[in-house]
Amino acid sequence: MTTEKPVQAENRLQEITALCKSRGFIFQSSEIYGGLRSSYDYGPLGVELKRNIINEWWKEMVYSRENVVGLDAAIIMHPKVWESSGHTSSFADPLVDCKICKERFRADKAPKKNPGEESIISLADKGRAKVACEQIEKEYGLKLERDGKDIAGAKVTECGYVCPNCGSPFLSDERQFNLMFRSFMGSVDPMNEVAQAIEKGELANLKGNELKARLETLLKPSTVYLRPETAQAMFVQFMNIQRSMSLKLPFGIAQAGRSFRNEITVKSFIFRSCEFEQMEMEFFCKPGTDDEWMEYWKEARISWWKRLSNHPENFRFRQHEPHELAHYAKGCFDVEYKFPWGWDELEGIANRTDYDLKKHSEHSGKKIEYFDTETQEHYVPYVIEPAAGATRGVLAYLNDALAEDEIPDSEGKPQKRTVLRLHPRLAPIKVAILPLVRKDGMPEKARGLASKFFQEGINSDYDEMNAIGKRYRRHDEIGTPYCLTVDNQTLTDNTVTIRDRDTTKQERIHVEEAVAIVKDKLFKR
Amino acid sequence: MTTEKPVQAENRLQEITALCKSRGFIFQSSEIYGGLRSSYDYGPLGVELKRNIINEWWKEMVYSRENVVGLDAAIIMHPKVWESSGHTSSFADPLVDCKICKERFRADKAPKKNPGEESIISLADKGRAKVACEQIEKEYGLKLERDGKDIAGAKVTECGYVCPNCGSPFLSDERQFNLMFRSFMGSVDPMNEVAQAIEKGELANLKGNELKARLETLLKPSTVYLRPETAQAMFVQFMNIQRSMSLKLPFGIAQAGRSFRNEITVKSFIFRSCEFEQMEMEFFCKPGTDDEWMEYWKEARISWWKRLSNHPENFRFRQHEPHELAHYAKGCFDVEYKFPWGWDELEGIANRTDYDLKKHSEHSGKKIEYFDTETQEHYVPYVIEPAAGATRGVLAYLNDALAEDEIPDSEGKPQKRTVLRLHPRLAPIKVAILPLVRKDGMPEKARGLASKFFQEGINSDYDEMNAIGKRYRRHDEIGTPYCLTVDNQTLTDNTVTIRDRDTTKQERIHVEEAVAIVKDKLFKR
Repeated sequence: MTTEKPVQAENRLQEITALCKSRGFIFQSSEIYGGLRSSYDYGPLGVELKRNIINEWWKEMVYSRENVVGLDAAIIMHPKVWESSGHTSSFADPLVDCKICKERFRADKAPKKNPGEESIISLADKGRAKVACEQIEKEYGLKLERDGKDIAGAKVTECGYVCPNCGSPFLSDERQFNLMFRSFMGSVDPMNEVAQAIEKGELANLKGNELKARLETLLKPSTVYLRPETAQAMFVQFMNIQRSMSLKLPFGIAQAGRSFRNEITVKSFIFRSCEFEQMEMEFFCKPGTDDEWMEYWKEARISWWKRLSNHPENFRFRQHEPHELAHYAKGCFDVEYKFPWGWDELEGIANRTDYDLKKHSEHSGKKIEYFDTETQEHYVPYVIEPAAGATRGVLAYLNDALAEDEIPDSEGKPQKRTVLRLHPRLAPIKVAILPLVRKDGMPEKARGLASKFFQEGINSDYDEMNAIGKRYRRHDEIGTPYCLTVDNQTLTDNTVTIRDRDTTKQERIHVEEAVAIVKDKLFKR
Repeated sequence: MTTEKPVQAENRLQEITALCKSRGFIFQSSEIYGGLRSSYDYGPLGVELKRNIINEWWKEMVYSRENVVGLDAAIIMHPKVWESSGHTSSFADPLVDCKICKERFRADKAPKKNPGEESIISLADKGRAKVACEQIEKEYGLKLERDGKDIAGAKVTECGYVCPNCGSPFLSDERQFNLMFRSFMGSVDPMNEVAQAIEKGELANLKGNELKARLETLLKPSTVYLRPETAQAMFVQFMNIQRSMSLKLPFGIAQAGRSFRNEITVKSFIFRSCEFEQMEMEFFCKPGTDDEWMEYWKEARISWWKRLSNHPENFRFRQHEPHELAHYAKGCFDVEYKFPWGWDELEGIANRTDYDLKKHSEHSGKKIEYFDTETQEHYVPYVIEPAAGATRGVLAYLNDALAEDEIPDSEGKPQKRTVLRLHPRLAPIKVAILPLVRKDGMPEKARGLASKFFQEGINSDYDEMNAIGKRYRRHDEIGTPYCLTVDNQTLTDNTVTIRDRDTTKQERIHVEEAVAIVKDKLFKR
C-alpha cells in the first residue's frame, strides 16, 4: 500500500457520503438533534435503491425457485432463542479504555504494534500532554520525554496494540461487551423492581459480580433483545414452515429484514450501522449433500452480485481460515467487495451443519427433524447459509456506479460530468420526463406522458425546473438511466427523444411506444 | 348486539387464526419456546400478502404521484425526538392491578359498569373464592356471600369499571405506563453505572420518586427508544428531503416500516401486535389549503382500501369527537373496518397543523420552514397525515376474503369448500402449475411452464403432490387466483387448462400464451 492510498480512500468515501446527502440518498439519522452514532436514514432515492436491491434478491432467491420460500419474523424474539444460539453468552466485542485520553475502543480493531516497540503518544495540546506525563509518572513510575503535545518513550505491552486515538499503550484490561440491544417487554417496569429492592435494603451488602448478578435477576423476567441477525427465526420456525407448506428437502427459507448491533466502531459510513438490513437464506439439505450445495450457493451468490455491477472484478471469495470459523461452522466463504478502504465482507456463505436445529431442539424440548418419505428415515437436515448485507450492498453498488467522465457540451467541447452508472433495475428513478421549455403546451404533453408511467407503477420523475442541460446533469448524477424530452417536434409528430445516461446518445421514439420501449430496456437488459 | 354475536365473532377469529397457522400465513413468534406475547411471524404466504399490501400502497402513494417521495428512517431515533413529540412524557396507557386475582389490565379497555352496581366476582375454583372472601373481609371489612367459585355482593366503585378477568371491583389506582420500548445505545452498560452507585452507597438513603429519579439520571445518557410510529422521521428530515429533492409545496413524504409498542392487551390476533407495520404519509401544504387536502386524502384513502376488497360496505369513516382529538390535531377521521368483533380502526387521517414541525424546530434550535418562491414568503407548512396499519390491513383483507361456498364435485354433487377470495394482486401465489398426474412427461412439461413464470418474477407454485382435486382445494384455500393444469391434451396440442379460483370455470389456453394471459388478468383487473 502506498502512502497516498488511505487519503484517496477517504476522499472517495467522502465523495459518496456528500453525494448521498446532497442528492437525497442517505442522511445522518436525527441530524437536527446532532445525529445518532452509526445511524442513518434512507432518503427518497436511497429508499428506492435499497428496496431495489432487496427486491432483486427476493426475486432471485424466492420467486425464481421452486424450493425457496419467504419468512418475515418479529425482530424481538423469545430471549431463550438467543440463549440457545449462544448470542447471550458470547456475542461480544472486546472493549478497552485508554487510561490517558479515555477513548473506549475495540481491541480487535486497534492499531497493531509489536510488544516492546516504542509508541508516540500524541495529545490534543501541550497542557494535556503535561498532565498525561505527570499521570504516567505517578501511576506507572515512568519518566517520559515530552515535546509539545507529543510524548516519547512509551513501550507497547504484551497485548500488541495501542489506543487508536492517542497511541497510548496504557490501557485497561479487555472486557466483553455484548452487541445485542436489550429491551424490556410486558407490563412490569424492571427499574421499579430495582428501586423496590434498593428501598428494602436487599442490595445494600452486595458488591462486584454478586451485585451485578442480583440486578440481572431483577431485570431478567422482562428482558428481551433486538435480533442481531435474521437467521435464527428460520431455525425456530422450521417445523411450522416445513409442515404448512409440505416442503421436501432440499429447500430454503429466505428472510430480508432489519437487524441491530450496538456497534462501537464508528467509520466507513453505512458499512457498520447499528441498524442494518440483511438478506439471509437458510438452505436445508440432506447430510452428505452439504458440500455440493455449498459449491452451488457460492457460485449462485457471487454471480448475482457481479451481474448487477459494472466492475465484476471487484467481487471475490475469501475462504475463512480454520481459526476464524464459528464453532458451529464446517466451512465459510466470504464474498468480499473492494470498498474504498480495501477488500471487506459483503456476504458470508457458511456450512452451519445441523448445529442450530439441534440446539433449538435441545433447549426447547421440541422435536425438530425431517421425515424423508422416500428413504423412510428421520434426520436433522444440514444447513448452507448465504447471508448477505443489503446495507453493505447499497454502499458497494454506489461505489461501483459513481464515476466521472467527459461528454461534449452544446458546442462540442468536452465537459466533466458526474454519473452514477447504476444498473437500470437498481436505479431509484427509471425515467425522467422533461419538457424542453415551460411553454407552448410542452409541460402538459410531458405530464400526459408521465402519467402513463405513473399508472404502470414505474418510478418516474416529471421535471420542468432549470435548463435542460442542468436537468440532464442531475439525472446523470442520481443514476436515472433514461430521459424522455418533449420538444417542438413532439407537438407536430408525437415523438420524443430518449437519452441514454451512459452514452448520452439520443434517439427519437413515438410517445405511444415510450412505455413499452422503456420497460423493455429495463427488464431485458 | 344479540347474545350469540360474540361467540360467532370469536369463532370467526379462531377460523382465521387456524387457517393462518395451518397454511403458512402467520405463526406465533418463537412458538417452540412457548411464544412471545402479541408477537407474530409471517410465514411463506403471510410475508407475500403483507408485502403485496405494502407494495400496492407504495405504488399508489409514491410511484403514481408526481409530488410524493419515500423515506426509510432508522427505528432507533435520537431520544430528543420523542421528547419534542411528547411521547416520552405522555405516550402511556392507564394500568390497573386487580387485588383479588392479580390480573394487570388497561383501565380504558376494562368492562364498564355503573358505580354502585353489583358485580359478581368469579374465580377459577371454590378454594380461591374462599381465600378471596377472607381477604376482602380482612382488607375492606366486607362480608360477602360465596356460592361455589362465585362471590356476590361486591359493588362497582366510582372508577366505573371492574377486573376483566374475575369481575372484581377491588382494584389498585391507575398508573401511567409508557408504551415505548426502551433500550440502551453506546459502549457504556447503564446497569454497571447503577451497580457502581449502589456500591458507593449513593442510593442508600433515597426513597420513592426521588430514588426513581436518581436511577433515571444514571440510565438517561444511554437511553434510546424504539419508534412507536414512523411519522416523526418525516418531520425531523423535512429540510434535508425538501432541499435535496427541490420539492415544491404541496408534497408528501411516505414511509412504510415497523413500529413498536409494549402492548398490554392481548387479544384480536395480530390487531394489536407489539411489532407492527405502518404505512404513513405526511402531506405538507400551505396553511389555508389544509381543509381541502383533508377532504382529498379522506376520499383517496378509503377508495384505495375498498378497491382491493370484496365487501366495500365494510369500510367506513368515523369522525373523532372533539374530546378524542390529540392536542395537536385540528381534525381526524378514522377509516374503520368491520372486524369480527365490530368496527375498529384501520387508518387515521389527521390534520396535524404545523404542530410537529414547530415543536422540532423549537427543541432542536434549527430553522424548519418553507420558502415559497412564487409569493416570496417564508412559512411553516400544515400537515395532513393518512396513517394506515399494514398489519391490520392483513387481518382486514383475510377476513374480507375468507368464505365458504359450494361447488360441484366430479359427479356434479355440491361440495362445501373454503376459498380465500383475495384480490389477485394481493394473493401470495399468483398461479399454480399442476401436472394432472406424475407420469407421461407431464411433470417435465409443467416444470417447463413454471420456469417461464419464475423468470418473470411472478410468484408461482409448481405442485405435483396429491390428487388434482385436493390440489385445487389447497389453492382455493390460500387464495391462488389461477391454476394451470398440464393434462393428456397438453402433450398433443400444447394447451393447458386455466382454472379461475372464484368461478372454478376452466378454459383451454395455449402454453406459449400462458404468461401473457395471466399477467393481463393480474394487472388489468
